[in-house]
Amino acid sequence: LCEPLVTEDYVVQSMPDVSPTKWHLAHTSWFFETFLLARYAAGYQPFNRDFAYLFNSYYVAVGDRHCRQNRGLLSRPTVEEVYEYRRHVDRYMSEWLRALSDDPPLQHEIAPLVELGLHHEQQHQELLLTDIKHVFWVNPLRPAYRKSPEPSPQSPSPMRWINFPEGLHWIGHEGESFCYDNETPRHRTFVESFQLGSRLVTNGEYQKFIADGGYREPRLWLSIGWAAVQEQRWQAPLYWIERDGQWLHHTLGGLRPAADDEPVCHLSYFEADAFARWAGARLPTEAEWEVACASLPIAGNLVESQAFHPAPAVGDAPLAQMFGDVWEWTASQYTPYPGFKPAEGAIGEYNGKFMCNQFVLRGGSCATSASHIRATYRNFFPPDARWQFAGLRLARDS
Amino acid sequence: LCEPLVTEDYVVQSMPDVSPTKWHLAHTSWFFETFLLARYAAGYQPFNRDFAYLFNSYYVAVGDRHCRQNRGLLSRPTVEEVYEYRRHVDRYMSEWLRALSDDPPLQHEIAPLVELGLHHEQQHQELLLTDIKHVFWVNPLRPAYRKSPEPSPQSPSPMRWINFPEGLHWIGHEGESFCYDNETPRHRTFVESFQLGSRLVTNGEYQKFIADGGYREPRLWLSIGWAAVQEQRWQAPLYWIERDGQWLHHTLGGLRPAADDEPVCHLSYFEADAFARWAGARLPTEAEWEVACASLPIAGNLVESQAFHPAPAVGDAPLAQMFGDVWEWTASQYTPYPGFKPAEGAIGEYNGKFMCNQFVLRGGSCATSASHIRATYRNFFPPDARWQFAGLRLARDS
Amino acid sequence: LCEPLVTEDYVVQSMPDVSPTKWHLAHTSWFFETFLLARYAAGYQPFNRDFAYLFNSYYVAVGDRHCRQNRGLLSRPTVEEVYEYRRHVDRYMSEWLRALSDDPPLQHEIAPLVELGLHHEQQHQELLLTDIKHVFWVNPLRPAYRKSPEPSPQSPSPMRWINFPEGLHWIGHEGESFCYDNETPRHRTFVESFQLGSRLVTNGEYQKFIADGGYREPRLWLSIGWAAVQEQRWQAPLYWIERDGQWLHHTLGGLRPAADDEPVCHLSYFEADAFARWAGARLPTEAEWEVACASLPIAGNLVESQAFHPAPAVGDAPLAQMFGDVWEWTASQYTPYPGFKPAEGAIGEYNGKFMCNQFVLRGGSCATSASHIRATYRNFFPPDARWQFAGLRLARDS
Amino acid sequence: LCEPLVTEDYVVQSMPDVSPTKWHLAHTSWFFETFLLARYAAGYQPFNRDFAYLFNSYYVAVGDRHCRQNRGLLSRPTVEEVYEYRRHVDRYMSEWLRALSDDPPLQHEIAPLVELGLHHEQQHQELLLTDIKHVFWVNPLRPAYRKSPEPSPQSPSPMRWINFPEGLHWIGHEGESFCYDNETPRHRTFVESFQLGSRLVTNGEYQKFIADGGYREPRLWLSIGWAAVQEQRWQAPLYWIERDGQWLHHTLGGLRPAADDEPVCHLSYFEADAFARWAGARLPTEAEWEVACASLPIAGNLVESQAFHPAPAVGDAPLAQMFGDVWEWTASQYTPYPGFKPAEGAIGEYNGKFMCNQFVLRGGSCATSASHIRATYRNFFPPDARWQFAGLRLARDS
Repeated sequence: LCEPLVTEDYVVQSMPDVSPTKWHLAHTSWFFETFLLARYAAGYQPFNRDFAYLFNSYYVAVGDRHCRQNRGLLSRPTVEEVYEYRRHVDRYMSEWLRALSDDPPLQHEIAPLVELGLHHEQQHQELLLTDIKHVFWVNPLRPAYRKSPEPSPQSPSPMRWINFPEGLHWIGHEGESFCYDNETPRHRTFVESFQLGSRLVTNGEYQKFIADGGYREPRLWLSIGWAAVQEQRWQAPLYWIERDGQWLHHTLGGLRPAADDEPVCHLSYFEADAFARWAGARLPTEAEWEVACASLPIAGNLVESQAFHPAPAVGDAPLAQMFGDVWEWTASQYTPYPGFKPAEGAIGEYNGKFMCNQFVLRGGSCATSASHIRATYRNFFPPDARWQFAGLRLARDS
Repeated sequence: LCEPLVTEDYVVQSMPDVSPTKWHLAHTSWFFETFLLARYAAGYQPFNRDFAYLFNSYYVAVGDRHCRQNRGLLSRPTVEEVYEYRRHVDRYMSEWLRALSDDPPLQHEIAPLVELGLHHEQQHQELLLTDIKHVFWVNPLRPAYRKSPEPSPQSPSPMRWINFPEGLHWIGHEGESFCYDNETPRHRTFVESFQLGSRLVTNGEYQKFIADGGYREPRLWLSIGWAAVQEQRWQAPLYWIERDGQWLHHTLGGLRPAADDEPVCHLSYFEADAFARWAGARLPTEAEWEVACASLPIAGNLVESQAFHPAPAVGDAPLAQMFGDVWEWTASQYTPYPGFKPAEGAIGEYNGKFMCNQFVLRGGSCATSASHIRATYRNFFPPDARWQFAGLRLARDS
Repeated sequence: LCEPLVTEDYVVQSMPDVSPTKWHLAHTSWFFETFLLARYAAGYQPFNRDFAYLFNSYYVAVGDRHCRQNRGLLSRPTVEEVYEYRRHVDRYMSEWLRALSDDPPLQHEIAPLVELGLHHEQQHQELLLTDIKHVFWVNPLRPAYRKSPEPSPQSPSPMRWINFPEGLHWIGHEGESFCYDNETPRHRTFVESFQLGSRLVTNGEYQKFIADGGYREPRLWLSIGWAAVQEQRWQAPLYWIERDGQWLHHTLGGLRPAADDEPVCHLSYFEADAFARWAGARLPTEAEWEVACASLPIAGNLVESQAFHPAPAVGDAPLAQMFGDVWEWTASQYTPYPGFKPAEGAIGEYNGKFMCNQFVLRGGSCATSASHIRATYRNFFPPDARWQFAGLRLARDS
Repeated sequence: LCEPLVTEDYVVQSMPDVSPTKWHLAHTSWFFETFLLARYAAGYQPFNRDFAYLFNSYYVAVGDRHCRQNRGLLSRPTVEEVYEYRRHVDRYMSEWLRALSDDPPLQHEIAPLVELGLHHEQQHQELLLTDIKHVFWVNPLRPAYRKSPEPSPQSPSPMRWINFPEGLHWIGHEGESFCYDNETPRHRTFVESFQLGSRLVTNGEYQKFIADGGYREPRLWLSIGWAAVQEQRWQAPLYWIERDGQWLHHTLGGLRPAADDEPVCHLSYFEADAFARWAGARLPTEAEWEVACASLPIAGNLVESQAFHPAPAVGDAPLAQMFGDVWEWTASQYTPYPGFKPAEGAIGEYNGKFMCNQFVLRGGSCATSASHIRATYRNFFPPDARWQFAGLRLARDS
């Protein structure tokens, strides 16, 4: 993912939510060093003792950390030093894991942490892409991450309403495979009958909302959403620019027209919610989404497609684009499932402490790995966050 | 309620969340003038055309309004003019309602709005008390609203855990009696088995949390809660002062010791949540609370008792203090019920647009009227709000 | 001065620079109590010990004080209690001063402090007027302090340039009469030849600046002045409102047209400076102003005229309006005179510690007492302050 | 100067006052491109049209510009591209200047701008050093710009008072050699007799001020200076750290003890002023400084010494360290000289528009070029600026 970048690109933090590329690279190795090597690998020597401070994100239990919003003020360690750090940790991890075959009990104990570390790194791979996209956006030169040809226009599948009957459903992760603690425990939820849109909302549909004055009509918005519209002067999704009456948007492939048939992207929850209200519909709850998705295979425009951009819905599957393209804002605030217990120790800070004033997103995006996403996966962001690949699918009562 | 106040007390806005007493008085009459007299009473002349601007709170649909945080900058209209405004509106309302007996269809149409106006005024009566309490708090002279004798200490009932079995429950308001739109529609929710504390958490229990370093241990807190603790330097509930090793608190009756047996009060959601975690428990969800409360009579230390302060639990009812004393923070973020439809028109702004980044509180307080509260009533505040009479009851999985 | 006010008017602080009327009343008595009665009058009992905290403005040496920007959050003490406090202090002062005739040495020692206290009170009388003007301004009802008829238009004296030759001048206060420490010591300053406008700049002249795009042309402004224009969206002097193509302004007599012949008022230093640059002139230095004024009698539209508003220049005196009407911004930053020594003790905090990032204004205004102003008087405000009666007179090199 | 830096160091902006190294490199070439090549060199093609926007600092008259505080958000242009830009501009400048020998009138016209461009670049060379020092400071790894050995302690010359008699003096630049517009016109100023310290104030002397509670005593400070101390929690000069009872400071050569005999450095005006008051002295005015310095040769610890750090006073010259080591804060606010006229056109924005709320510093520092400084040179910074090499020399009335 870093291959198209130059050294200077690794350094910049374009807003507090964004981390510099080199920080992502170092932090993911720090995770393995801190939660595995430093604890379990006898005789391990840290690469640099200051890195424990510099590259801890938010794990209070493992010590002090550098101020998040100042990550872009660090010219050192250099990019090359960070790569050296990664090689150091990777080499130790490999050797140590190999040696562990002699110690099955320890192997058993640390396996979940290794797996968590890998999923953690996948999350930061997605953030690396969303963050560098923002770094290029704030630059008046508008650099492209990787020039790509403009896709040819498609006829998007028409939107249909898919029916789901009422019922008591089991929600949450089941079985032995990996999941985050926030997907557990599996539990029952009663879901009224509902309808779900057969595909994501498109740029073309969203442009109608804009043209109809959606950003000027307070009645369509949540109260604090309307305050955000006014304070931040939102008039379109993040990365959109109007030029000569046409909407362009900044993509990882450069600035180009916002194609009508592509899923709309880089919306806040507030915008997704307002659009749904304007459309006479609403956002699905996360339970509805999970019920609808339960039996679908994990396939779609995920990071493996290397498009790095959402693509139009094609074909006539009843429910298209459930995985990949854009994360789907749900109407559900991010709360613990009944009986939720955070993981033990510092790792317990991974999810639980953020269960407040955030909304759940489902389904992964064009920057998510196929081996990372699943039907029970709960992503979460504050309702004003816009720099993720986030869009929406409509729902309504039936 | 205003009887103990002097003219100067009516003017001050001690923080943006607080409104001056005279604003509450005027705004509640503005509600009747705007939604009833101006719309339905032929020939009604507004008392002062500028009041539509000055005393609109947040109803975007009925026009522009004065900036909320500047309500305390208005020396005029005077207190006497506001009382005159109220007499003007009350007189017109009385005459008009009397005359309406000749017009049953209109009578039928406006009755729900009249009822809503009365419940609206009850809400502002509670706010008037919580707001004047804050106004007196920021004054180094620490005035009392109404001097009252210190209550004699009680032996609070011991806390027991009350069991509730799992089940699919109907939640929300039923029947023809008045409720707010946010209590509807009645719908099914599956609730796992749980336990609820038999009474509210007390000052004495909360002091143990403080003494145990509760305000210094990030692991007990939600992430943004911990940020609030540090930024606002919280070390105890709002209104608490440590003097010579003893905790005093500011009450409407003056400054006095925080009695061990009284329910702890003036907590934010963050503090209630952290206390529960420290105590090895959690907050109840609003569904759990409503299930537990469904069959209880509406009785307790409500505003009619004129104590204006929470009182110790006495007696041996299995579930004490469910109504009155303090609002109980629940673990539930404030979201629409399945199938929720806001009321039509400007009145629809009453509740729905606030369903974001707030938590539900249940049960009313010592400042709530008995005719205002009910088992399905959903109050809501942002998780850092502390100036309401808000405390907590523990819950846990069973 | 307080006679036209109602109780509510005494309470409000409309911005941090403004103090509530009741604060001014209490603070000026606090000055006598603190610096005289408490120190020199044996057996004096303070009226209320908390007032030392509440009504200290900025005298660090005499103890802690209430936060300046929270003066409007105090409903108590009531207005009546403040008047009682004033009567208490006045009565003690009278009795004590009378008794002092038996103690000439002490009489001699305290006389300068009594005189300072009186001049201090005169300053607060002016602030009381400028502050209540602002309190009425932020109120959409736009109350008037004292309704007054609109003045009939005048033909203002034409502006002429008055010549002053170069020379070495003595500047600063001389003799035994009262002055503030910042007017001393008298010292020599070399002043190049210069010209001074024969009268103040008028509203009519200032409207030409506005119409010519003065507020949209950065080249006319100091760098931080231009930043202030943009951040605060200045488009005209404070208190000006454009309505139907006409400029109205808020006065103590109510809202009325900004008469062409009146001196322009409520300008910041930045605006006065930008206007002068636009006019091909500059502001006078304080030395130039003092040289020009040295032999003029103290006469003009001062507070004794009870106009509470600047008036057109009439007659054909060579230098009109040097005293009264509006304070004249000078080009001089407020710095100590060579050899300046602040007064001893807490009183030394009166002036010296403010000699940074402020500009000197000269000549008094329509809210200044004739017995308070003099040719050497140095008033000072930050360059963005606009709520004083401040305008300008042009100067240029000759 | 850039030789010790790695690519990442060029990118970071550690606070709004600081510019990234690559910005300094580009901006100084932009100056030549904008004010010379683009205006006078027929057929010149700009290197990149976007650079006019990116690298304009504050010249409103030449067009829009990138927001100052976002200079560190730009990963592109890369460092290598900026060097290419510099080579492009340098090459064109060289060729064009050579060709100009055929056009003496144009040569004459543009010569002052070329000279200004060179002095402008010298100023940014100093800023490049002060800025990279700050970039390294905010980095917990505390990188050094260029490791240097700790200097061996010296016995600093004792401080003596040098007398200067009163008199009318000519101040400001005279003659044909280069100066900035703010040094003109030469004019007369009357200066009272005064005394000047024979050398700069040292770290050792400043530590006595700290140890005596200088940072805790409001009476020593200007009012807004004391506010700065409290808000920014100043307890020592910028870059000082207390460790095990010893004061260390961050230098371009790394972290090392603050040697007693070195001039104290990285003070704000507020600190210099407070120290002087504590020492029973004051800061010199800029006129006093210039009078004292008038006949001294330009020699001292300037950038050419490559120490990049102030050095102890040695020898027994009556007035040591007037040039070099540290800029000396004067008591003079930065105001136009009598008769001052800014240069014509955009170049007139160089100085005049900053004449507000800044103080004059004199004498240059260890980061200033010997060919850049002179006795009449007026540097200026806001009174809270600390990241420049700024210290003080005492003065007093005689």
